[in-house]
Amino acid sequence: MSTLAQITPLPRNLVENAVRIALEEDLGLAGDITTDPIIPADARGAAAIVVREPARIAGLDLAETAFHALDPDAIFERLVDDGMTAEAGTTIARIRGRTRALLTAERTALNFLGRLCGIATLTAAYVAAVKGTRAKIACTRKTTPGLRGLEKYAVRCGGGLNHRFGLYDAVLVKDNHIAAAGGIKAALSRLRSRAGHMVKIEVEVDTLDQLREVLNYPIDAVLFDNMDIPTLKEAVGVADGRVLTEASGGVTLETVAGIAQTGVDLISVGALTHSPRNLDSSLEWELLGSLQ
Amino acid sequence: MSTLAQITPLPRNLVENAVRIALEEDLGLAGDITTDPIIPADARGAAAIVVREPARIAGLDLAETAFHALDPDAIFERLVDDGMTAEAGTTIARIRGRTRALLTAERTALNFLGRLCGIATLTAAYVAAVKGTRAKIACTRKTTPGLRGLEKYAVRCGGGLNHRFGLYDAVLVKDNHIAAAGGIKAALSRLRSRAGHMVKIEVEVDTLDQLREVLNYPIDAVLFDNMDIPTLKEAVGVADGRVLTEASGGVTLETVAGIAQTGVDLISVGALTHSPRNLDSSLEWELLGSLQ
Amino acid sequence: MSTLAQITPLPRNLVENAVRIALEEDLGLAGDITTDPIIPADARGAAAIVVREPARIAGLDLAETAFHALDPDAIFERLVDDGMTAEAGTTIARIRGRTRALLTAERTALNFLGRLCGIATLTAAYVAAVKGTRAKIACTRKTTPGLRGLEKYAVRCGGGLNHRFGLYDAVLVKDNHIAAAGGIKAALSRLRSRAGHMVKIEVEVDTLDQLREVLNYPIDAVLFDNMDIPTLKEAVGVADGRVLTEASGGVTLETVAGIAQTGVDLISVGALTHSPRNLDSSLEWELLGSLQ
Amino acid sequence: MSTLAQITPLPRNLVENAVRIALEEDLGLAGDITTDPIIPADARGAAAIVVREPARIAGLDLAETAFHALDPDAIFERLVDDGMTAEAGTTIARIRGRTRALLTAERTALNFLGRLCGIATLTAAYVAAVKGTRAKIACTRKTTPGLRGLEKYAVRCGGGLNHRFGLYDAVLVKDNHIAAAGGIKAALSRLRSRAGHMVKIEVEVDTLDQLREVLNYPIDAVLFDNMDIPTLKEAVGVADGRVLTEASGGVTLETVAGIAQTGVDLISVGALTHSPRNLDSSLEWELLGSLQ
Amino acid sequence: MSTLAQITPLPRNLVENAVRIALEEDLGLAGDITTDPIIPADARGAAAIVVREPARIAGLDLAETAFHALDPDAIFERLVDDGMTAEAGTTIARIRGRTRALLTAERTALNFLGRLCGIATLTAAYVAAVKGTRAKIACTRKTTPGLRGLEKYAVRCGGGLNHRFGLYDAVLVKDNHIAAAGGIKAALSRLRSRAGHMVKIEVEVDTLDQLREVLNYPIDAVLFDNMDIPTLKEAVGVADGRVLTEASGGVTLETVAGIAQTGVDLISVGALTHSPRNLDSSLEWELLGSLQ
Amino acid sequence: MSTLAQITPLPRNLVENAVRIALEEDLGLAGDITTDPIIPADARGAAAIVVREPARIAGLDLAETAFHALDPDAIFERLVDDGMTAEAGTTIARIRGRTRALLTAERTALNFLGRLCGIATLTAAYVAAVKGTRAKIACTRKTTPGLRGLEKYAVRCGGGLNHRFGLYDAVLVKDNHIAAAGGIKAALSRLRSRAGHMVKIEVEVDTLDQLREVLNYPIDAVLFDNMDIPTLKEAVGVADGRVLTEASGGVTLETVAGIAQTGVDLISVGALTHSPRNLDSSLEWELLGSLQ
Repeated sequence: MSTLAQITPLPRNLVENAVRIALEEDLGLAGDITTDPIIPADARGAAAIVVREPARIAGLDLAETAFHALDPDAIFERLVDDGMTAEAGTTIARIRGRTRALLTAERTALNFLGRLCGIATLTAAYVAAVKGTRAKIACTRKTTPGLRGLEKYAVRCGGGLNHRFGLYDAVLVKDNHIAAAGGIKAALSRLRSRAGHMVKIEVEVDTLDQLREVLNYPIDAVLFDNMDIPTLKEAVGVADGRVLTEASGGVTLETVAGIAQTGVDLISVGALTHSPRNLDSSLEWELLGSLQ
Repeated sequence: MSTLAQITPLPRNLVENAVRIALEEDLGLAGDITTDPIIPADARGAAAIVVREPARIAGLDLAETAFHALDPDAIFERLVDDGMTAEAGTTIARIRGRTRALLTAERTALNFLGRLCGIATLTAAYVAAVKGTRAKIACTRKTTPGLRGLEKYAVRCGGGLNHRFGLYDAVLVKDNHIAAAGGIKAALSRLRSRAGHMVKIEVEVDTLDQLREVLNYPIDAVLFDNMDIPTLKEAVGVADGRVLTEASGGVTLETVAGIAQTGVDLISVGALTHSPRNLDSSLEWELLGSLQ
Repeated sequence: MSTLAQITPLPRNLVENAVRIALEEDLGLAGDITTDPIIPADARGAAAIVVREPARIAGLDLAETAFHALDPDAIFERLVDDGMTAEAGTTIARIRGRTRALLTAERTALNFLGRLCGIATLTAAYVAAVKGTRAKIACTRKTTPGLRGLEKYAVRCGGGLNHRFGLYDAVLVKDNHIAAAGGIKAALSRLRSRAGHMVKIEVEVDTLDQLREVLNYPIDAVLFDNMDIPTLKEAVGVADGRVLTEASGGVTLETVAGIAQTGVDLISVGALTHSPRNLDSSLEWELLGSLQ
Repeated sequence: MSTLAQITPLPRNLVENAVRIALEEDLGLAGDITTDPIIPADARGAAAIVVREPARIAGLDLAETAFHALDPDAIFERLVDDGMTAEAGTTIARIRGRTRALLTAERTALNFLGRLCGIATLTAAYVAAVKGTRAKIACTRKTTPGLRGLEKYAVRCGGGLNHRFGLYDAVLVKDNHIAAAGGIKAALSRLRSRAGHMVKIEVEVDTLDQLREVLNYPIDAVLFDNMDIPTLKEAVGVADGRVLTEASGGVTLETVAGIAQTGVDLISVGALTHSPRNLDSSLEWELLGSLQ
Repeated sequence: MSTLAQITPLPRNLVENAVRIALEEDLGLAGDITTDPIIPADARGAAAIVVREPARIAGLDLAETAFHALDPDAIFERLVDDGMTAEAGTTIARIRGRTRALLTAERTALNFLGRLCGIATLTAAYVAAVKGTRAKIACTRKTTPGLRGLEKYAVRCGGGLNHRFGLYDAVLVKDNHIAAAGGIKAALSRLRSRAGHMVKIEVEVDTLDQLREVLNYPIDAVLFDNMDIPTLKEAVGVADGRVLTEASGGVTLETVAGIAQTGVDLISVGALTHSPRNLDSSLEWELLGSLQ
Repeated sequence: MSTLAQITPLPRNLVENAVRIALEEDLGLAGDITTDPIIPADARGAAAIVVREPARIAGLDLAETAFHALDPDAIFERLVDDGMTAEAGTTIARIRGRTRALLTAERTALNFLGRLCGIATLTAAYVAAVKGTRAKIACTRKTTPGLRGLEKYAVRCGGGLNHRFGLYDAVLVKDNHIAAAGGIKAALSRLRSRAGHMVKIEVEVDTLDQLREVLNYPIDAVLFDNMDIPTLKEAVGVADGRVLTEASGGVTLETVAGIAQTGVDLISVGALTHSPRNLDSSLEWELLGSLQ
């Protein structure tokens, strides 16, 4: 059933808040001082959003909302859905409405699409690179401040998994936590008596010895930080399916397949959200509002 | 005088709003459920922010504000200032304060620094590439939604100029405006009677013929969109210093020097803000709050 | 084409935010404790907004939005548009909808219209007073805190020009800047290396000597502050069309024509926005919701 | 005891919100692009706020907060307090702090003072005009949208009383309410069963017959709308101290004394808040940050 | 006329703000991670809101708004109105719309209904307990922070009166005010010269002597704090109808009838809003979106 | 180490936002119209916060922040900490500062304490009732809209565990999800391919057959909804430690011990947050600002 195949959507309020902030940022107190004097208020036009390179699509809700904010009666027709792939040159959506609204909202819509499609496309590349292994690709908290919900969604559109959304929804014990607590035992025993029962606990380990120690405690996952491939492979063997295993650090499109072949369950990649290349897209006019 | 050399600062409210949003996004309703149970409230520590690759620095105000939001008494000592260059491995700031605050604010601080230093460093690379020419490097409106003020500031830290901040503070007439108005004359005459007297007007041209036509009107700048180098050179000659000349489209670190040598006044580069690589930095602990 | 004649509109979000704030201020937590107990929820009525004195209209979007906020199905019919003139006694709009909504939103709608029409009408009087000269009338930053976008729009409705919207969109170098910098040369050279290329620069001068000095620098406009008429005339001659000339200080409806005849390009008037007289208007009921 | 003589203060959050909004409006995303490039960050200066005409002072908290927002260490010294009178040329406050902060916050501070002192001064003129009568001067809901709390406070500084703050805190039954309800009896009986016991009820009457009718009901005040002086005098006699009497409509500085002499308890004046003339004040520099 | 019988409604913006905050709190950045993956986006369903115990209804606007926020096309049909009574098992509303929206908004809608119906039902019980006396039941400022407008509305739905909404809309002089002022005379004389004329003044008294003293001043109401029944009865006699009399302190469903029989005008009960029992209600599915 | 014993704290921004909203709600545009006219601005006082019944303390940060918002120099001294127990009559904190601030913030502070201590005290009673069993007490999403973070914190102060904070941080599959999906298998398989790896999954079951079926899938917890004690005991046996077991429905202080003795891991109680009785506390003046 195709409706099931769609990506879990962005909460509606995230979309509306993000678009409102972006438009206020672009319009200021004076509005679009180029378009308004030149284009009559009642001119109408039609345009296509075209991707200029191969893309995994993400962010159409944001683009649609940007145009609707300026012309509630505009018609936004999707030719693909978020989570789908498009070749270079594909028209992914068409908009018909007031010419002013189309010109004024264009940059806001493309800025959202550029960033979110960029993340989705990069994620999809990582996912493709580990095809045939058990590894899944996950994002991190290295997101753009203020856009975490949107960027995590774009990762889902690219076929990736979301790691925790913040400091609040899962426990990740790092080396500094352990050092400050005076050891793994102290850290984990304090956690156990306080963490909610619906919260998963992951512990970062740097060595096999640390791994063996943490496996004595009731945890859900281990994060292998910056281990080389042979060590990773051995670590997966030590874990032996008792906990989820995650590799992170130094992951690139070149190295990810090798990491995946160690048998880890997850590979987390900060670059998905902190350094995607903007996807190139444009608004191509099909009918420009004329004056009569 | 060194104080004059510093970059025009970010308005204080932008810094505070951005940090507040980022921390709320990371802390949610439950807070840092890893750190709080493990680390005592009164433990204190010290850490260094270290850049792991050569960097042009931008965003220290944001990092400082993030730590201060969680520990108002924390001491944030800057070893370099925004706008300065740092080698790989340089400690750019030191923080001393409550261990919990340092652990909890770490990712927020590094996310801001990663993005803003990334933009500043990329901008500086473009600026260096056109050294010796008259061309200046400028950013565009292709910024991350919600972060335009911060990203434009990072461009300044990199030695670049800010193009208009939004649709509201300068006029940029594009091909679609001209087409919808029925020609350059109609578009520019409507603008002239409406634009405020303190607003500059730039017109985008694709051909030399268009350039010759727009030079008949009292405009401040022309944007050469996607012209090849020989055409650009000829266009600069046609403009002959009567208006500012700006090149845009297809600009990369490889092509920018050649574009600059055509004699244009400005080269605008969307990639500065839409596709910077995150600058790699980390928080290195120097003294971890112990428990006694 | 009449659609072109209309005033560049207010950004929609400014209208919605202003109305929301005004209604929250008037309704508090308890709502309209006079109307709600007396008037049945389903009573419907009709009313006319009538100006009681000659007016230049501004602010109809705000009035309409206020009524729609309380009755989304209300019909707001405009008999004139913003920027048009109305004689005393003119009905400028009619509203039909729930009687409660009309009674509750009345004051909010009239408060917006009173202030914005007041500004537009005062602006139009200044514009009329300089008819036949080259001078245009401009507003300043002496606006009501929080309402700058609305008040600058009302100035446009009155036929005036908008000076800069804030400290961020144009440079205006005043005597104190020059004094603090140690002279015109120091001030302008620092500016030149930092100001964005799309930003205009205006310098305030008090004397002809200062004028002659600043004309040596590449600036866009000069502001003659509080000069008498003969000096102004001489100053216009000195400027000789090389820069925009603006007069300010001591401008009243009595003095403005004389100032305009000196040949200045612009006359800026703080009183347009800081001391307009509220335009008298009222809601005249045409059909009051009855009870059956 | 002098501390008792001071005016009931503005809630602190109103002051902070108003100043934040005003500064964001003036600084935008780029900040003060004139001051920052010219003035070094560490330059310090001193200035005086001087009123240029006789004034009743109101709004010093707002001015102080504006300077402190940009320089938390600035020293703001008040030479007079809100509610006091100052002659033309009086220095009402002195500020010492960073030169940039003083230059950047100047207009925000003066805009608040101009409007609030304008209201207080106009109120004080009305209060003076009715001296020797029992009448008090009150404001209305004809305030600037978004600034009601501030403007009502300025009326208090001028010696006036505040009428209701909104639709929520007192009942004022107008002719349209009565007409829509089908008569005074219906309107007042519905109200009585619903209005909270701590809410006062005032009824607007146009004629003596209406007055006699409403006096049959347990109300707290009557509003005489646009009555001429002889009718007003007779109305006061009819009311005979059983309810508060309030006159409104057509009140000017010329007519107010005559109205007061009819014996009414209150005279409400919309112009206090909808059409005050901005009070002329300025920032006079006493020590301008130099560069050494 | 039945429309008159309805309760004075909540201001629309309070409803929208409260629902927006509640949904953002429940959805976070990730949304409903149970429902979205399981239920197709186009599945539609129908459900009934059923109260499981006898109830006075309050809050249907909030429930409706919660469902509409997630499915603007959902149909919300009310079978009873706010302010009406419903037996256990009554269906009070039906909703038809997208299954996802119904499942996701269910808890938000029921949380509002549970609290507001709880308050209304408790209020109605107090009102019933004093039936046949002159006493009315009123709420206090002991409300849940952030929900005062909603909770005061629920009291109205239960047949209670609203006491003042905040510190701003009525004066209530307590023992500490009197002690700090140095006596009743000092406190009330200071108040009289400052309080607005549309503000009622109530004074709290603990003894009959205090009551006799305060009756010498022009006040509107007295609050008898924690008096026993015989003293209350005597106090009502002393007041003798000259001011409103209010009893408070130690009021329970068991004691309230006895207090009412003393003849007081009002009995204020903090527990109405600070300790209501949540009314038990549920969403019963009538048609669950199936997949075909 | 005592610092470790303290409850995981509320994020600071939640405290500040909640107090700001509460004070704005109580102060409106006019402020405290009783206190300000009566009490001189410079009067200072001291008061104690006393609980009038046995209490588990929660919410001191909120009380302290309320007083500091109105007097930044006030001294708030805690005699107990959140999470501790206090007998009736205990002074839990002392405040010294401006008398106006103490009087004005009193109700806001006590409203927060009343609700949060009420929740903590009720939670502690449930925790005490299951002492000696393996069962822990958990809260639900049946919280007051807008206060979820605060109320979940109060549960922690009472010794309870937090269940999921919203729809976003854990999966809870209910009967309606399963029915809409067409069965347990369909529901859980869709979930598995979409849920993040750091998210726990709980499934609600009504019968032992359902329990046996869901145990075939990799889930983390089962929720036994409204099972009687014998069935619960059997269900715990069937689960046999493979998943967390949670009982809910019909839990009261009378029934909870019996439920706990079935061996379930968790008992979730909606009443903790939806129907706590407000804890009675008061501000007792120790030194009332006098006028000298």
